[in-house]
Amino acid sequence: MNKITILIHCNDRPNIIASVTNFIAHQNGNIVYIDQHVDREQNIFFMRLESEFGSKSFSTEAFKEAFKDVLADKFDMKWRIYSSEKKPKMALFISKYDHCLYDLLGRYNSGELNLEIPFIISNHNDLKSIADNFKIPFFHVPVTKDTKNEAENEQLRLLEEHGIDFIVLARYMQIVSPKLIDKYDNKIINIHHSFLPAFVGAKPYHSAYKRGVKIIGATSHYVTEELDAGPIIEQDVTRVTHAHSIPDLIAKGRDLEKIVLANAVKLHAERKVMVYNNKTVIFS
Amino acid sequence: MNKITILIHCNDRPNIIASVTNFIAHQNGNIVYIDQHVDREQNIFFMRLESEFGSKSFSTEAFKEAFKDVLADKFDMKWRIYSSEKKPKMALFISKYDHCLYDLLGRYNSGELNLEIPFIISNHNDLKSIADNFKIPFFHVPVTKDTKNEAENEQLRLLEEHGIDFIVLARYMQIVSPKLIDKYDNKIINIHHSFLPAFVGAKPYHSAYKRGVKIIGATSHYVTEELDAGPIIEQDVTRVTHAHSIPDLIAKGRDLEKIVLANAVKLHAERKVMVYNNKTVIFS
Amino acid sequence: MNKITILIHCNDRPNIIASVTNFIAHQNGNIVYIDQHVDREQNIFFMRLESEFGSKSFSTEAFKEAFKDVLADKFDMKWRIYSSEKKPKMALFISKYDHCLYDLLGRYNSGELNLEIPFIISNHNDLKSIADNFKIPFFHVPVTKDTKNEAENEQLRLLEEHGIDFIVLARYMQIVSPKLIDKYDNKIINIHHSFLPAFVGAKPYHSAYKRGVKIIGATSHYVTEELDAGPIIEQDVTRVTHAHSIPDLIAKGRDLEKIVLANAVKLHAERKVMVYNNKTVIFS
Amino acid sequence: MNKITILIHCNDRPNIIASVTNFIAHQNGNIVYIDQHVDREQNIFFMRLESEFGSKSFSTEAFKEAFKDVLADKFDMKWRIYSSEKKPKMALFISKYDHCLYDLLGRYNSGELNLEIPFIISNHNDLKSIADNFKIPFFHVPVTKDTKNEAENEQLRLLEEHGIDFIVLARYMQIVSPKLIDKYDNKIINIHHSFLPAFVGAKPYHSAYKRGVKIIGATSHYVTEELDAGPIIEQDVTRVTHAHSIPDLIAKGRDLEKIVLANAVKLHAERKVMVYNNKTVIFS
Repeated sequence: MNKITILIHCNDRPNIIASVTNFIAHQNGNIVYIDQHVDREQNIFFMRLESEFGSKSFSTEAFKEAFKDVLADKFDMKWRIYSSEKKPKMALFISKYDHCLYDLLGRYNSGELNLEIPFIISNHNDLKSIADNFKIPFFHVPVTKDTKNEAENEQLRLLEEHGIDFIVLARYMQIVSPKLIDKYDNKIINIHHSFLPAFVGAKPYHSAYKRGVKIIGATSHYVTEELDAGPIIEQDVTRVTHAHSIPDLIAKGRDLEKIVLANAVKLHAERKVMVYNNKTVIFS
Repeated sequence: MNKITILIHCNDRPNIIASVTNFIAHQNGNIVYIDQHVDREQNIFFMRLESEFGSKSFSTEAFKEAFKDVLADKFDMKWRIYSSEKKPKMALFISKYDHCLYDLLGRYNSGELNLEIPFIISNHNDLKSIADNFKIPFFHVPVTKDTKNEAENEQLRLLEEHGIDFIVLARYMQIVSPKLIDKYDNKIINIHHSFLPAFVGAKPYHSAYKRGVKIIGATSHYVTEELDAGPIIEQDVTRVTHAHSIPDLIAKGRDLEKIVLANAVKLHAERKVMVYNNKTVIFS
Repeated sequence: MNKITILIHCNDRPNIIASVTNFIAHQNGNIVYIDQHVDREQNIFFMRLESEFGSKSFSTEAFKEAFKDVLADKFDMKWRIYSSEKKPKMALFISKYDHCLYDLLGRYNSGELNLEIPFIISNHNDLKSIADNFKIPFFHVPVTKDTKNEAENEQLRLLEEHGIDFIVLARYMQIVSPKLIDKYDNKIINIHHSFLPAFVGAKPYHSAYKRGVKIIGATSHYVTEELDAGPIIEQDVTRVTHAHSIPDLIAKGRDLEKIVLANAVKLHAERKVMVYNNKTVIFS
Repeated sequence: MNKITILIHCNDRPNIIASVTNFIAHQNGNIVYIDQHVDREQNIFFMRLESEFGSKSFSTEAFKEAFKDVLADKFDMKWRIYSSEKKPKMALFISKYDHCLYDLLGRYNSGELNLEIPFIISNHNDLKSIADNFKIPFFHVPVTKDTKNEAENEQLRLLEEHGIDFIVLARYMQIVSPKLIDKYDNKIINIHHSFLPAFVGAKPYHSAYKRGVKIIGATSHYVTEELDAGPIIEQDVTRVTHAHSIPDLIAKGRDLEKIVLANAVKLHAERKVMVYNNKTVIFS
């Protein structure tokens, strides 16, 4: 049994849904999941669809070609089609904080994440032993002002060599350059330790403490060139009081960061996220 | 422009989605919303669909007949089709607590609820002035052990006379009889002041206090013959501490009750709830 | 039985707690509640204390004098002492939105709020009938560019005439002037429809929609001269998705605004809020 | 600088607070934290207090004796006094689930937990490598019907030998016997995967799925002889929908279990929990 996931967006107009479902029926597919959304302000149609094909002769590539010829061109669709056979490959970028790393590797180990982790890159060597414990290859790529360009080329080389599909910055404490962002457009997931758009930039827990907020948060988003301004995938918050010091906020925030980043990774890996106008549609 | 909402459930089998969307296309309808769910354990398929029909000659009744002939019989569907022109009629049953009443009437007044409230029934006269302020007809139907049967007949008479579609028990402090439940199967919405299935029955806040829970809740569900055991539509919770007395729990609970009941009413009125096996599918 | 509430803050130094509790014991008082907080960064001590005095000859004024002489001067305290006999008087300022008004008056009616509402002021006449229903005096004080100064004088006259202790802006759609803010320093409570500091200013739900956040919020704070930048009393949030339109956000936000404002009003009326450095200490 | 934490409970009567604070002042202590609670129904007074003593000659033992003579006997107090120098020793009991184990050890490693973990006991060998990675001694104590008594004696021996203060059952899949419960009264912390008192006993996620709840939870409580009925320390919940399968509930629940158990462990280790009438007072 072959299973594929289809993601579509295009200008909204009548009969898109019927045309797509009809096409799949003609290809002898059975739709097992369908969800759709229309942005009424922008008149954009979004759809996510999972379909099973029982025929032995089914080919994802042939299906894609037919889809393009019959449907995509007609409705001027942007589309992606994924075979469920192929798990996405995720590269982890880390620095010195270990909480998101432990959390993601623990989930990976337990089978909760439907993806592969070919390697971990870090600009420091501190967390190598964790990678070793989980038996994930670890590459130390130091980044200094002078070696930034060189380091980036090394990162790109590793990403390409391993056929990486998306990158997760698990509290990676470096600014990612435009070259990497261009190449992995809406494929680099960051975790920011505030409920964006509040407290953009460095030391958000310090800013939250100073402002005296009663709620702190964490936000996972795709990286764009503007700092902490990319499309938001997931957010969560927790209550705090005047009695919480900055270290308390940091400790409480770690729990948020772990869960928010893990949820974003799962949504992305299961191809449930679509991006447009710097926002996301999440089909969950 | 005519707009209809279709709710379907039946045993799952291939091609249901394509068949339904195809049928609507042939009727010159444009699907503006589609959502579906499959209960894999029970092999049951659920779908909710909204479709628009531009033709002047469109008739909901004719559409229903065609739907039945072409689709429903073939797939052995249970189905409901609603025209968006007809707002559902809700009867409010109340006793002496006013918080859910104020909340629902405030929302009704502000246009937030897409329904009509032909009347309010109460077994007490205490809240009549609120009904008067909001200009909703108020019927005082006292219930005593001796008059219970008579009272119920009066309730039924009023419900039928006004063509009521569903009933909301807004902290109505009487057990509703099987006769009413039978007639309004999955159409009587209750608010229970605990997170069910914990603390079934009377005085749940007292029980919550005694057990020392750190979270209290409220649950809105359809009324069935077994007390507080019907299909759950909506739940919400809030944190409490050892410092909260029973009156504190009651006060905090009122806020939960209001919001949970209002959400359940909205979901039901917008035909987003399907019931099976004493559970709900919520297409929100 | 007389009951008083004492709020203290001063630089932290040893023996403040023992000195205060000792003083109360010598005054034949029994402490029924004590809570304290130290801001370690700023070295500031905060305390809230409730004490009962059984003696018939007890006088709050005499107690205050003794407190000042024996304790306050020695520790250079800022302090407030309230008799529980005297309920605080709250003025409601409203415009055209009725949800917070209905909510607060419903709570007031049910005895949930330990305060008095001598009157409601509005710059429009639209909601007069609600005030009438709840039998609260209603003053229509229109505000235009030309009459702003005059309107403010009228507001001040009413506030003084009725001995108002604090003001609640229940979605009052006017900027309050420095004259009022000065006179009611940390005594004007506003509800802002975002989780501050995100989305300061007008139309926060529109901004939240545009930014694509997955959580929206509401914030109640004391009014200071800088817009939406005063000390935060209470915040709450709720989840949203791509499927929520701006009107959906507004409707969901109304529920947040009601509860957040009501909680802030209760905390203030029960003298549980202390303000320093543009932040609050909440003894709840 | 010596620091101690005092926990007191006794029948409520006037002047307890003043007497205690006075006593500490006479011992040249400076109170840095005080919190109290009165259960008005049962007339029980609770207090938690942290105090610093600068004198070189200060002795916790001498302080305890004086406290007993001067205060505890007079007010018939139940009391505990802890020196902050001595970190509590926690034994971890585990079986085959690793998520709570990883979570607690990750926090332990990062310095978030103010305690020591002398060893881990498991009835299976599966998770030994995790203990090894974190360099915590691991004892495999298999439990079968025939060896239950013997296993328990071995557990007790290890607990005593290492001077264990409290035990955490991190998804330990065995019923703990009355002998252990007696010896570690209110010192054995369990994590149950439902919001108690709903879904007591085995397979709560299956029961939650069957009942169709819209919220699932986790509860951490002290173990008593009645299953899942001990004093609740901490609870948390998360939303679910009809679309979540039982494995989905289990995966979402894992995140709850980790955080709820970690919070309960922290509260206990910081001596912030008091137990009475099968409930807890949490001074946080």
